[in-house]
Amino acid sequence: MQSSDAYVVALGVARALDADTDPLTDRRAGIDGKRALITGGVGFIGSSIARELCRQGAKVTIVDAMLPGYGGNPFNLDGFRDGVELVLGDIRDSELMARLVADQDYVFHCAAQVDYTLSTAEPILDQDINSKGTLVLLEAARKHGPEAKIVFASSRLIYGKIGYIPVDEGHAQRPLNIYGVHKLAAESYLRIYASVYGLDTVTLRIPNPYGPRGQMKHSRYGLLNWLIRQVIDGETIHIFGDGQQKRDYVFIDDVVDAFICAARSAVERGDVYNIGSNAGCSLEEMVETVISVAGNGSKTHVPWPEDYEANETGDYVANTTKIFAATGWSPKVALTEGVRRTYEYYLNHRAHYW
Amino acid sequence: MQSSDAYVVALGVARALDADTDPLTDRRAGIDGKRALITGGVGFIGSSIARELCRQGAKVTIVDAMLPGYGGNPFNLDGFRDGVELVLGDIRDSELMARLVADQDYVFHCAAQVDYTLSTAEPILDQDINSKGTLVLLEAARKHGPEAKIVFASSRLIYGKIGYIPVDEGHAQRPLNIYGVHKLAAESYLRIYASVYGLDTVTLRIPNPYGPRGQMKHSRYGLLNWLIRQVIDGETIHIFGDGQQKRDYVFIDDVVDAFICAARSAVERGDVYNIGSNAGCSLEEMVETVISVAGNGSKTHVPWPEDYEANETGDYVANTTKIFAATGWSPKVALTEGVRRTYEYYLNHRAHYW
Repeated sequence: MQSSDAYVVALGVARALDADTDPLTDRRAGIDGKRALITGGVGFIGSSIARELCRQGAKVTIVDAMLPGYGGNPFNLDGFRDGVELVLGDIRDSELMARLVADQDYVFHCAAQVDYTLSTAEPILDQDINSKGTLVLLEAARKHGPEAKIVFASSRLIYGKIGYIPVDEGHAQRPLNIYGVHKLAAESYLRIYASVYGLDTVTLRIPNPYGPRGQMKHSRYGLLNWLIRQVIDGETIHIFGDGQQKRDYVFIDDVVDAFICAARSAVERGDVYNIGSNAGCSLEEMVETVISVAGNGSKTHVPWPEDYEANETGDYVANTTKIFAATGWSPKVALTEGVRRTYEYYLNHRAHYW
Repeated sequence: MQSSDAYVVALGVARALDADTDPLTDRRAGIDGKRALITGGVGFIGSSIARELCRQGAKVTIVDAMLPGYGGNPFNLDGFRDGVELVLGDIRDSELMARLVADQDYVFHCAAQVDYTLSTAEPILDQDINSKGTLVLLEAARKHGPEAKIVFASSRLIYGKIGYIPVDEGHAQRPLNIYGVHKLAAESYLRIYASVYGLDTVTLRIPNPYGPRGQMKHSRYGLLNWLIRQVIDGETIHIFGDGQQKRDYVFIDDVVDAFICAARSAVERGDVYNIGSNAGCSLEEMVETVISVAGNGSKTHVPWPEDYEANETGDYVANTTKIFAATGWSPKVALTEGVRRTYEYYLNHRAHYW
């Protein structure tokens, strides 16, 4: 367990490091002029990474299958679309992936089926995209792009039922759903391709991400984003149970930062890192933040759904000391600020997301 | 860590239990007249289970894809072939599996790609058979045979690098090869189908099995069986390094017993059990046993292969107290006796295996 003192110390060091360097010069180092492939690059996390990489001077290629109902939204590329090569294609297409990974400096692997409920209803589909898709990418990299640094978007759901918080990377890993099984299998592929073939791979375990550019057409992806839509739509927010269940909501800009830090840092090949907000937040508190930022909205408590126990992990807060030690990354955006930016984004761009 | 005293106590109780009951009457209970499906039932473990189930009065259906180079050998059914329904088919065929699992009391899931070296060279093939194949079977059971008890043949290779011996089921699970990743994913499917859908599933983690009916055409499956072939063929046995690496060699009759015990016992749904010989044995000692039983043969020490470190788990001995407590199972066949029976079997039937 990590004390809150340790958090404060860690954050203090991070701020001191930032103060010593010119942020933009420092951040562009290792990215400017480099080639980067982003799978799922029209989706929430992928497009956000793509935007920042373009800003930092990378030559970005995006591949996205644009599967209906998934996270791909062309508006996510608004403002930098002309700066990227955009390929409509599927990570399960081994010939395409062979061509795309060649000569890349970085691969950010974000393409996924991200609905854990669907993973139980359609386990073979989830396997095909999340597990086989990752293998196809790694096989392509091994044969055609062995120099690329590969950063993989995994999930805190690989841990399953939580035994203690904050959760470190050594916590037991017994996923409660098929989605978690396949994310864990994909992590293992990256670890094995590092040890057996020497590929330069790294995995980030993401808790509950939120922010601009997430899909907002259905409730099955990001909880916080969905509640923001409910408030904008004037709907009452439903809180399951007593609302005290803790989650770790991490703002998309911090997620993007973590991916770029992991890509640029000489971390151990095949290793795995938690990211998070360094703060647990109850559902009740999160809902109150959303309502407070919006200046309106209502909430009500409802019973848990009948099947919740099989999927409920218990409170989750990530211990992020490992990635801080290895890369200097720490989250910068507090919940209220992140919610404010998210709320304003969707208020301004709702026509493209609703 | 389990002391050797604990083993002795456990074995003593097992023998006392045996002495109190008529073995055959006791063993047939729960099997006689029942319907059992065995996937991979023409292979080493599957055919051995099929043989014993027939002996105990079960109505046995075997499904086997008879993939070239795999473990399926028609001679494995010698003597009881007319007593089983034999279906040539693949576990990845969802329509076939839907038909076969209907109305079964037991499903023994042994079909697999079992060569871990091949799993690294052909990871997508390994995934298709070991991971997707298991999902197809479970989906079929969920929809068409939810009452069946499903027993799955997993592997000790899910543990990866060994931290301590004897290894209990809570040991860290970081497979070193793709085969281990997919066996672990398959275990997780069984656990999740138990918790989400209430299927009655159980997993056995098998160390190094040996005995009659294993394939003997190439060296990539069972080490001990292969060394017996080398002795019969008059070849010199190569021992990697100093030969002190410990393995847990478990005789096929004990493996079969464990499957049937697990099937008949009301163990916790979705749970996982180690099986083993309750004795670690160095490679040197195993080779000496083979040579001693055969009355001839020679050995020589050679350096480890260059790539061994990525795959070498370190010494492995299973802690089997959990399955003993839950089912009363313990191994009965000591190494010398098992090697003797194996040697005689292949000496007599070599024409069908070489």
